[in-house]
Amino acid sequence: MTRYAVLGAGSWGTTFAKVLADAGTDVTLWARRQEVADTISAQHVNPEYLPDVKLPAGLRATHDAEAALDGASTVVLAIPAQKLREHLEEWRDHLPAGSTVVSLAKGVEMGTLKRMSEVIADAGGVGSDRIAVVSGPNLAGEIAAEQPTATVVACSDHARAVAVQHECSTGYFKPYTNVDVIGCELGGACKNVIALACGMASGQGYGDNTTASLITRGLAEISRLTVALGGQAMTLAGLAGMGDLVATCSSPLSRNRRFGASLGAGLSVAEAEEANHGQVAEGVKSCEAIGELAARHGVDTPIVDAVRRVCAGTASARDVGDELINRERKPE
Amino acid sequence: MTRYAVLGAGSWGTTFAKVLADAGTDVTLWARRQEVADTISAQHVNPEYLPDVKLPAGLRATHDAEAALDGASTVVLAIPAQKLREHLEEWRDHLPAGSTVVSLAKGVEMGTLKRMSEVIADAGGVGSDRIAVVSGPNLAGEIAAEQPTATVVACSDHARAVAVQHECSTGYFKPYTNVDVIGCELGGACKNVIALACGMASGQGYGDNTTASLITRGLAEISRLTVALGGQAMTLAGLAGMGDLVATCSSPLSRNRRFGASLGAGLSVAEAEEANHGQVAEGVKSCEAIGELAARHGVDTPIVDAVRRVCAGTASARDVGDELINRERKPE
Repeated sequence: MTRYAVLGAGSWGTTFAKVLADAGTDVTLWARRQEVADTISAQHVNPEYLPDVKLPAGLRATHDAEAALDGASTVVLAIPAQKLREHLEEWRDHLPAGSTVVSLAKGVEMGTLKRMSEVIADAGGVGSDRIAVVSGPNLAGEIAAEQPTATVVACSDHARAVAVQHECSTGYFKPYTNVDVIGCELGGACKNVIALACGMASGQGYGDNTTASLITRGLAEISRLTVALGGQAMTLAGLAGMGDLVATCSSPLSRNRRFGASLGAGLSVAEAEEANHGQVAEGVKSCEAIGELAARHGVDTPIVDAVRRVCAGTASARDVGDELINRERKPE
Repeated sequence: MTRYAVLGAGSWGTTFAKVLADAGTDVTLWARRQEVADTISAQHVNPEYLPDVKLPAGLRATHDAEAALDGASTVVLAIPAQKLREHLEEWRDHLPAGSTVVSLAKGVEMGTLKRMSEVIADAGGVGSDRIAVVSGPNLAGEIAAEQPTATVVACSDHARAVAVQHECSTGYFKPYTNVDVIGCELGGACKNVIALACGMASGQGYGDNTTASLITRGLAEISRLTVALGGQAMTLAGLAGMGDLVATCSSPLSRNRRFGASLGAGLSVAEAEEANHGQVAEGVKSCEAIGELAARHGVDTPIVDAVRRVCAGTASARDVGDELINRERKPE
């Protein structure tokens, strides 16, 4: 019996639950707040995150995580990166034995420097062959609007990746499989930092050449880090690397890009937080962890380092552009 | 004595001449029309192509190609791809012996299926070690506005690439060297076709996920073709591949993207031509040649093929999105 529990009813969790339902998969969506769960079940809409999207009638929502998990063959975690551990500690005993656990979270845990699959193994007590990652050029609002989108389902157990691939394939959502969990996760985590850099450049009035250069050189950094951590450079050339990075850095809707633009316009992190409805972009948190990870493995990451310095308040956003231009003349 | 002749006073030729002059390099710009040459020399502006840019006082322009070529150590060809051969046949006897010949042209010659460096070798009688290519995320208007931009100078003779690199380095323009001429040229030629595909998607109202997926899968096609033709896949992961592709596909200013958007909105090629001031985008011409080249080398290029069919009028632009989604479920 295939039954999915999607835990987390933000825009991506809600959208992924819709995709599953549209694919004909049995799915229950857990929302932290009861009124959100009730509205989704009764009115088929998530007013806060996807107000304009009519959700499938078959999509049930609940406020009771235990009930959502009961009998699930696959558990999808749609929880912000820095909150994943505390939630898993709570849910750990209710994760069904043998279930596949799919991570939608993007980031690296501060302090521990762990990738999300490592946090899931650690805090959830889940074997690594049971952990899958979904990552790609996946702006939730566009998928919810049923625009053609490709993605990657990565799991070291190829058969599990194929099962998830089939269970979330629709006419508008096209998953490819991959066995490189490390590469997919680093692509998803690091893109937020590069999107911050692109935002900083656009906030200073720089155009598409600068953005494209930051994306290209940024991807080279992420690829080096991935290889150093045991992943595949090829993964970063694909949808979960380049694809996700391009979508995020191109989209004016990206929170990280928008936050970077505030910094580029000269605001401090605190001021940018205020300008962005009190939210700090994920990249601001991840850049420290990713920079430390790179330093620990001896990987050169000039763009990540520049973003770190801006976020720490020790450099101005203008330095990010200079970083790109004023390096030594050399072969590519 | 370092002296450059830049042949072609369109937006990219004029901008590259400005970059050279700003780098302190002696440069003469050739314009086809005498009044354009006179205006650039006397008023330091190219009213048609870069009306808002003040050109360096030291930049001379002439209507006399022979005079521009006389004594030049480096000749820069800023001529549209399909017109390069006829110009070279005219200039062939005036290309200074031993001079470096730099191609700014992007495309594949129709009929012969030759890359620009092959056309230069062929029609200009230039040894391949003397031919360099400049390619990267280089929207001319942004460089002319002195926004930070990186690029690649490729030449099989590394020393020549380094010489050009030094002669066009400025505070805002940052060239890297590469020895892979084939990869750089194919990146520059094929990106126009992928930009057409992205335009077709956006013309149908699709957003950043679709564009990012087309860019990613499109780059995979170009990389396969490059390897089949003897170039390096790594070049395509860099500024002349991914960088140029991202800049072109992201920019609403890109002629190819705009032309594709007209096709995506349902116009025929003839109607799109009319809507775009009587100009057919380079990708419309190149897609035939690139598709044939791929077929000849047995390389699978579904996006290029879809664009070809749309440009030939045998498929609708909507098929390009479907092409992406309705392929077999498989590993990435």
